[in-house]
Amino acid sequence: MAMALKKKPVTGMKDVMPAEMEIRDYLIGLIKDTYKTFGFQSMETPCVEHIENLCSKQGGDNEKLIFKILKRGEKLKIDEAKEENDLVDGGLRYDLTVPLARYYSNHANELPSPFKALQIGSVWRADRPQKGRFRQFVQCDIDILGEASNLAEIELILATTAMLGKLDFKNFTVCINDRNILKSMAAYSGFKEEDYDEVFIVLDKMDKIGPEGVEAELIEMGYTSESVKTYLSLFDEVASDVSGVRYLKEKLGDYLSDETADGLELIMSSVEAAKECDFKLQFTPTLVRGQSYYTGTIFEVTMDDFGGSVAGGGRYDKMIGKFTGQDTPACGFSIGFERIVMLLLENGYKVPGGRQKKAYLLEKKLPKEAMLKVLALAKADREAGRQVLIVNMKKNKKFQKEQLIEEGYTEIADCYADSVDKL
Amino acid sequence: MAMALKKKPVTGMKDVMPAEMEIRDYLIGLIKDTYKTFGFQSMETPCVEHIENLCSKQGGDNEKLIFKILKRGEKLKIDEAKEENDLVDGGLRYDLTVPLARYYSNHANELPSPFKALQIGSVWRADRPQKGRFRQFVQCDIDILGEASNLAEIELILATTAMLGKLDFKNFTVCINDRNILKSMAAYSGFKEEDYDEVFIVLDKMDKIGPEGVEAELIEMGYTSESVKTYLSLFDEVASDVSGVRYLKEKLGDYLSDETADGLELIMSSVEAAKECDFKLQFTPTLVRGQSYYTGTIFEVTMDDFGGSVAGGGRYDKMIGKFTGQDTPACGFSIGFERIVMLLLENGYKVPGGRQKKAYLLEKKLPKEAMLKVLALAKADREAGRQVLIVNMKKNKKFQKEQLIEEGYTEIADCYADSVDKL
Repeated sequence: MAMALKKKPVTGMKDVMPAEMEIRDYLIGLIKDTYKTFGFQSMETPCVEHIENLCSKQGGDNEKLIFKILKRGEKLKIDEAKEENDLVDGGLRYDLTVPLARYYSNHANELPSPFKALQIGSVWRADRPQKGRFRQFVQCDIDILGEASNLAEIELILATTAMLGKLDFKNFTVCINDRNILKSMAAYSGFKEEDYDEVFIVLDKMDKIGPEGVEAELIEMGYTSESVKTYLSLFDEVASDVSGVRYLKEKLGDYLSDETADGLELIMSSVEAAKECDFKLQFTPTLVRGQSYYTGTIFEVTMDDFGGSVAGGGRYDKMIGKFTGQDTPACGFSIGFERIVMLLLENGYKVPGGRQKKAYLLEKKLPKEAMLKVLALAKADREAGRQVLIVNMKKNKKFQKEQLIEEGYTEIADCYADSVDKL
Repeated sequence: MAMALKKKPVTGMKDVMPAEMEIRDYLIGLIKDTYKTFGFQSMETPCVEHIENLCSKQGGDNEKLIFKILKRGEKLKIDEAKEENDLVDGGLRYDLTVPLARYYSNHANELPSPFKALQIGSVWRADRPQKGRFRQFVQCDIDILGEASNLAEIELILATTAMLGKLDFKNFTVCINDRNILKSMAAYSGFKEEDYDEVFIVLDKMDKIGPEGVEAELIEMGYTSESVKTYLSLFDEVASDVSGVRYLKEKLGDYLSDETADGLELIMSSVEAAKECDFKLQFTPTLVRGQSYYTGTIFEVTMDDFGGSVAGGGRYDKMIGKFTGQDTPACGFSIGFERIVMLLLENGYKVPGGRQKKAYLLEKKLPKEAMLKVLALAKADREAGRQVLIVNMKKNKKFQKEQLIEEGYTEIADCYADSVDKL
């Protein structure tokens, strides 16, 4: 006898029901369509990646969360294996950036320069399962490889916000900063370079613990009260529009390069001038973004009705080179696809432009001629743009119709042998 | 120093380049859109499936080809492991049917009945790598669960052929048969039930070795010359349209149930009457389709300019029940997504409705005011439906333009500080 099936999905992963799929399908279409108008090109890498690439220290903590895949081919010598990696040669990708770096290094000479990449795909992380976080989830990244100028930042921000605008999200904010501004402010205040990362980790909590909290933590860590006070007063004085950048340029003097300040100003004024929907662009000198690979501009999208960011990115000019041996400027923006799906579901979002839905209910053992008539009607309905369901009538027709109405069928036709001619 | 990246994808899997992705994205959109007009609903399962489900004998030979995933959580006890399955608890799915059965058993009471499922997703098989066959590939299945009547077959065939017709495929043929006709013809000819599978394996080679070859093999296997001759002469006499079914109904008498013959006739005449594009529908009594899980109608799409089938399916009324413990009629049609992509690429298929592509080439260090002007123009272009690329001018502008023309950019504007006002 066949063994009974395990009915639940594997731990931490989920079955997607049709109602959610309708939103996911629509969102993927909208993302691809919008980004393509900005010249981004779809690309894909395999879900399985070399274990060496996944473990190459570009993935940070994610490397602990790799789903590893057993070697295939000759029978595994489990007896001789000492550690996990003796048994595996691949793993499921935990992000789309490491595979992008591999892809670019493999194909750079077949690709346009700069290469504007659009990737949507699943990634896997063996995280502790928790509500709303899954071990398989979709990431959606755009990256511009080979563009050193701020044109990259401008286009990434314009494209991402244009897409969010098409989903009728209101009141969202693009926070922007530059790792070099973070460093300049720290240097100006007297912190030492080797302490920056530690200082930024505390600064990153500003939202939660406020300036008093940041001050207290820095003092407790042993930094001089003078440095800490200078540092915090800087943030007080900075406006959140482009004038804030100009103020810092003057205030920080030689600590802040003209290139960084002017670059950020150009990005901000360009985005303000050319944005395709309404949102707030906010210079946010407290924005840190954790990943160590960022080298310049960093940005993040936040929404009033959602704690945490729904998209984030920045410039990472040194990463591709570490992989390929050849320096390649790079800048990317990643949308929190699953968060956006969740928000749309919570808001009861209706996918626009849905088809009118019509159902034909067939009498049991409907004769052939009547069946052909119904099929012809259904064909004409589809040609007229409708979505058509043909189903056999159930014993409880009333209940069946109620369910169809709930599924959005606005027209329901009963089909009996002696009545189809009148339809 | 960071280790150099492995540049090639893992063995047997592939990076998808932008030109192919354009076709893949379009094809997925077209498939989803077309199938939805027939009332199919998108659904998804995780790529990782319980190892017990994958090894439950529903997958046939594919079970040897599973990519197995190491257990996560506490440190693996490799020392104590005796065999592979002591180390794994999941694997990558090798088809979409086993996960569909699990999904349906988990969610049947939340789903409409019948449930018309549409699944597009990657599957993985650790096959020996060979040209044109990959270890990760996309499958595209539609299945109707809970519909015992032939309405299921009719709709599956109408939907699949409507989709193929939209790709401008001409000269394709839908071959149709029924496992019960196969059996009846064998019974009528005097073969014993326990020999059917063996006989059908030989019959399946008719295309390649002809009737003489089939006859010779069956004789050599020890079947009586009388049975073999009766059997082969039956195929000679059968027309490939619906009259062939009627002929067999009369000829085979009690060997063939009215239900099977009339059902197939209804399917064929309904499809002929309601089909949405031009193709040949062919009763093909030699059609076997290997999988042992088929219980009734079987069908396949072949194309003149392609050896082998590009889509196939049939009725499998016993499979879901084996998993769930509750009999559920089921019928499915699977498109060979990768084969269709390959055919479209080979035919130089142009995705219809592409946008006009326009590029702006920016002078090095274009002043801010000029940049804002270009961004405003690009925005207007996008609003007018164009795809817009903004790039910095390269030293070899002539070569850069040639490349852009090759990429399909039909308008290219040079942008200098003193000229953008004239654009």
